[in-house]
Amino acid sequence: MSHDFQSFWQRKKVLVLSGGVGGAKLVHGLTRILPETSLNIGVNTGDDFDWMGLWICPDLDTILYTLSERAPIDRGWGIANDTFHLLDALRDLGGPDWFMLGDQDLAVHLMRTHALCTGQSLSEVTTALFRAHKLRTQIFPMAETPQATRIEDLQGETHSFQDWLVKLRAVPKVKRVVFQGDGEPSHALMESIHAADLVILPPSNPFVSIDPILRLTGVRELLRIKPVIGVAPIIHGQAVKGPLAEMIPTLLSQPPTAHALAAYYEDLLDLYVVAPGDASSSCTVACVERDIMMRDIAARDRLAADVLDLARTHIFAADT
Amino acid sequence: MSHDFQSFWQRKKVLVLSGGVGGAKLVHGLTRILPETSLNIGVNTGDDFDWMGLWICPDLDTILYTLSERAPIDRGWGIANDTFHLLDALRDLGGPDWFMLGDQDLAVHLMRTHALCTGQSLSEVTTALFRAHKLRTQIFPMAETPQATRIEDLQGETHSFQDWLVKLRAVPKVKRVVFQGDGEPSHALMESIHAADLVILPPSNPFVSIDPILRLTGVRELLRIKPVIGVAPIIHGQAVKGPLAEMIPTLLSQPPTAHALAAYYEDLLDLYVVAPGDASSSCTVACVERDIMMRDIAARDRLAADVLDLARTHIFAADT
Repeated sequence: MSHDFQSFWQRKKVLVLSGGVGGAKLVHGLTRILPETSLNIGVNTGDDFDWMGLWICPDLDTILYTLSERAPIDRGWGIANDTFHLLDALRDLGGPDWFMLGDQDLAVHLMRTHALCTGQSLSEVTTALFRAHKLRTQIFPMAETPQATRIEDLQGETHSFQDWLVKLRAVPKVKRVVFQGDGEPSHALMESIHAADLVILPPSNPFVSIDPILRLTGVRELLRIKPVIGVAPIIHGQAVKGPLAEMIPTLLSQPPTAHALAAYYEDLLDLYVVAPGDASSSCTVACVERDIMMRDIAARDRLAADVLDLARTHIFAADT
Repeated sequence: MSHDFQSFWQRKKVLVLSGGVGGAKLVHGLTRILPETSLNIGVNTGDDFDWMGLWICPDLDTILYTLSERAPIDRGWGIANDTFHLLDALRDLGGPDWFMLGDQDLAVHLMRTHALCTGQSLSEVTTALFRAHKLRTQIFPMAETPQATRIEDLQGETHSFQDWLVKLRAVPKVKRVVFQGDGEPSHALMESIHAADLVILPPSNPFVSIDPILRLTGVRELLRIKPVIGVAPIIHGQAVKGPLAEMIPTLLSQPPTAHALAAYYEDLLDLYVVAPGDASSSCTVACVERDIMMRDIAARDRLAADVLDLARTHIFAADT
């Protein structure tokens, strides 16, 4: 990156509000081009759950493994080349095996759970885990206490998020996403929103990755007065990953398009980055087309640079 | 085993009070020759400890792995051919690595801890773990609640048992063994002592494996009126395994001999089985010499049969 780029962003604070895989990839690109102190990452913890007494934070872990380049290329969870010896042994003892947890992955959950039990906050544990991975990223959970996302299906049954997503493979159609917990955001989240010159909503699921953050007390109100750029998690009507495309028709009564999501975020977004061909005249938000598919690390860097350039052109145009 | 053997022991209840490796080997032999319903195993839990929030019961596990023939031939802990991927990953995160725990081994600790946390008693969990290993052994912990054994060294410092044994490699000389907890024995232990026609003290460390059981409320008093056969954990002045030989001179002010231990148990023992050449005229308890070294499974079976035959000859002589 040029000296001009560096000196411009050195003076800005960029906050990303992220879910799992899509968010993690864009965050990875951003960490590779932005000055360390310019970037803050606030992460959804609505998916967090207790597994055999271990506290698992899927979105925090996905970012941890993505940034440390331990994430597998071919699947959206866990650590590349991990083994499953503990889980196999647990199955033989009659334990649960519906959630895949590798041996190295479990070390992270054990470390986190133990630290939480000895009184550390989730923010402190998260920082420690990132430092242990030699990552200096400024990253924090959206909340210190559990704020569980639950799924109410069309039959009126309510499922824990992981039960719905993993055990039931997201088959029951979603009538409503329900948020539990006291809605108290982490101190780090509120501070980073206050400090932010730019907020990025990466290509994460709006309903189950971004909304859990937005619904926390005071968050949406504060974001409304901030410049916000979103990146669409839908390309030509399809989700890059996960159950999003199936959720839009039931939750928004519309076909699954990027501009349906733009309209959903309308009160927040200043600019929405969509795939080539996905900008529509019916879009209620300023949309720009870029290649948003992140197939490899170069594509993450390129999209990160595109998003920052768009922010500079469209949002900070008056700045030097 | 002969029909006569079977029908004799069918009508008896044999209780073994066991520590780790030595006890486990004799128990293994006994399970292979005695009718299932004749044998009860009460196990020391004074070594139990919390490791990263997991509750580990070394002596119960040693028996579990020995009876299921998962124990390694060449070392006294864990599971043969286990891997250490979780522990290796934990070390990279700054976690503890002084206590070796394999991936399959950890599955047992995770299962136990989770069951305890959901309200099961240690006895219930133990039964479930043995059943999951397809073992129908009647086995139970000496107590349901923690009764920690601690080591006070000659410098007056007190260590948790595993810190002393594993972290400090049993180097600090033992001034005194200290027992914590309320001293409440498990219901199963007291019931099995009441019911016992014969009690066997296998070749386990008297000070840190058997005493923790004997000191529980009411146990020693009840054992005094029962026929008790012991098997020496010392052969020609050396412990088969562990720090026992070094403990005897400081704790009993005597050289490490089988008859020093016979005298230590004097009020309880009816017969003490020692290695060839270890019976001494200074022995205050009736001693008989047998090959008590259990090098392989055949030797476990042989010693188990020897102990039962000795009981039959010396203790049940009046019975048919």
